[in-house]
Amino acid sequence: MGKTPTPRHWVGFDLGGTKMLAQVFTDDFKSLGRERKKTRPQHAAASGLARISETIRGAIREAGLTAEDISGIGIGCPGPVDMDRGVLLSPPNLAWDTVDVGAALTKEFGCPVAVMNDVDAGVYGEYRFGSAKDSFCAVGVFPGTGIGGGCVYRGEILRGRSSSCMEIGHCHVVPNGPVCGCGQRGCLESVASRHAIAAAAARAALRGEAPHLLAETGTDIANIRSGALAEAIAHGDTVVADIVREAARLIGIAVSTVVNMLAADTIILGGGLVEAMPELFTTNVDRAARKRVMPAYRDAFQVIAAALGDDAAAIGAAAWARHVIHEKSSKGSG
Amino acid sequence: MGKTPTPRHWVGFDLGGTKMLAQVFTDDFKSLGRERKKTRPQHAAASGLARISETIRGAIREAGLTAEDISGIGIGCPGPVDMDRGVLLSPPNLAWDTVDVGAALTKEFGCPVAVMNDVDAGVYGEYRFGSAKDSFCAVGVFPGTGIGGGCVYRGEILRGRSSSCMEIGHCHVVPNGPVCGCGQRGCLESVASRHAIAAAAARAALRGEAPHLLAETGTDIANIRSGALAEAIAHGDTVVADIVREAARLIGIAVSTVVNMLAADTIILGGGLVEAMPELFTTNVDRAARKRVMPAYRDAFQVIAAALGDDAAAIGAAAWARHVIHEKSSKGSG
Repeated sequence: MGKTPTPRHWVGFDLGGTKMLAQVFTDDFKSLGRERKKTRPQHAAASGLARISETIRGAIREAGLTAEDISGIGIGCPGPVDMDRGVLLSPPNLAWDTVDVGAALTKEFGCPVAVMNDVDAGVYGEYRFGSAKDSFCAVGVFPGTGIGGGCVYRGEILRGRSSSCMEIGHCHVVPNGPVCGCGQRGCLESVASRHAIAAAAARAALRGEAPHLLAETGTDIANIRSGALAEAIAHGDTVVADIVREAARLIGIAVSTVVNMLAADTIILGGGLVEAMPELFTTNVDRAARKRVMPAYRDAFQVIAAALGDDAAAIGAAAWARHVIHEKSSKGSG
Repeated sequence: MGKTPTPRHWVGFDLGGTKMLAQVFTDDFKSLGRERKKTRPQHAAASGLARISETIRGAIREAGLTAEDISGIGIGCPGPVDMDRGVLLSPPNLAWDTVDVGAALTKEFGCPVAVMNDVDAGVYGEYRFGSAKDSFCAVGVFPGTGIGGGCVYRGEILRGRSSSCMEIGHCHVVPNGPVCGCGQRGCLESVASRHAIAAAAARAALRGEAPHLLAETGTDIANIRSGALAEAIAHGDTVVADIVREAARLIGIAVSTVVNMLAADTIILGGGLVEAMPELFTTNVDRAARKRVMPAYRDAFQVIAAALGDDAAAIGAAAWARHVIHEKSSKGSG
């Protein structure tokens, strides 16, 4: 009462399958500091949690702040999460199981923590600050290690009773298709993720059909990253372009299902692959989806690339944390 | 002011592919009158609209009321609708196109009209009065002439910016499958609707594999209705049971996609087919869906049969009309 209110700061965290990013924001979402580390998905959950804390501390330090200055943390995580309890639910592409990340970070940093799916965070970021402003229903599809999905419906993250939802990567697209990380066969993720594309490209290289990729990157799929694929295409490896086009077509089929089910007006494609080849992805996803949706929805949606790049999930997680924590404290004081 | 308020009455209307039902309710949803007619889907829209009005007038008459006593009409229609403008958007199983049903009924009956998808109406009915009470996210799948879908999310019908959504019948389940009424191939509806089941059963009968069906009903698919299928199964036509089981399995695959996308906690199966064979449908849809959903969702949903039977859509449409019209008038007076 009477005192100048302490300025509020928010941490946004993006836990990816290959890298993690912490970013510190002012109350109006100017970035003050950031820190990035590799995820090491094969390591155990405890060492993963320690690494997350370390990364957040690094970003807070870079912002010239201490943990006491942080009003809340938002963290976007791969796969389904229990949004109410702040728990990761067996993420398909991390060797972790039901990790209590919310409680661990609350204990460590002494502030409320909002746990959400990483693509939900990214789509919320695009909805608030990027290319999905004013969308009624924005669905994000982020092909990467897996294929993440997220949805902002009427300004709120679409969710289950306690869990996140919109696991578009596990949409069934190829009957009796390859085995997926989730245990099923023929999920979108099993045929159109970066891992699936890299494996198909490696086989093409081994057959001598992608000479640039073979010469520059080789056939180790761990090395065939988005940039290597884009470069091979730019240097005339047309088979690699065909592989990406087919992945985009399959994503488009899943997108047509999403549009038929949600009448979504905005489909946002994001992640490293899309950033490296935005035109190739948006064009082919758009074509395949528009061909398959019901006539009533054919002209009622757009397929666009994410505008905020790698930062979408971190800023989205921070903004969602503020939205949720602010809401709770307003209710508490009301 | 000071006067006893006039008692309010609501009309609920269910426009199906084969029949239409009008029902008149009190403000607390006791049924006062009902009227039912065949839809005649091949007839033009104008004659369809006249038939709808006639059916509503019949129900109002049976309730001992006149059009002036009606506070609002809710109408559930097959296929996508423009909920704001009250327009049907090229329903796949009616020979109508963009019919302005809301405006026509408002003109005819002088009251507000809420136009919605028929399965949205049915699911809302089940959510308010039937088997889906307290659901966080209830998704309805009603296999009939086509396969309708609907969703009530946190107490509201899930929708697009202006249109209805949840067109689960057009979920892609069989690559290069049969041509669907929507123009695409391999939609769920093309392989698991009553028409698809009837066609498969007719072929089995013609091959001599369904002797009871052949003897009692014949091979005209227009005659192979839900009751005839159930009876053939009860009398030992196991091939017919296999056909229904396979349709239920395909519905289960589409349901697994819905659960992965929406983390729906309740799947309601309804319509004539399910009413005739509730156990066969719920068991096989449940099994196929549970097998395919992500581990995080495996124990987080139920598959149940609708409880309100044929009346779900009419009472749901009436209740939604009251919800929407009441909301609008509250806002107007606030």
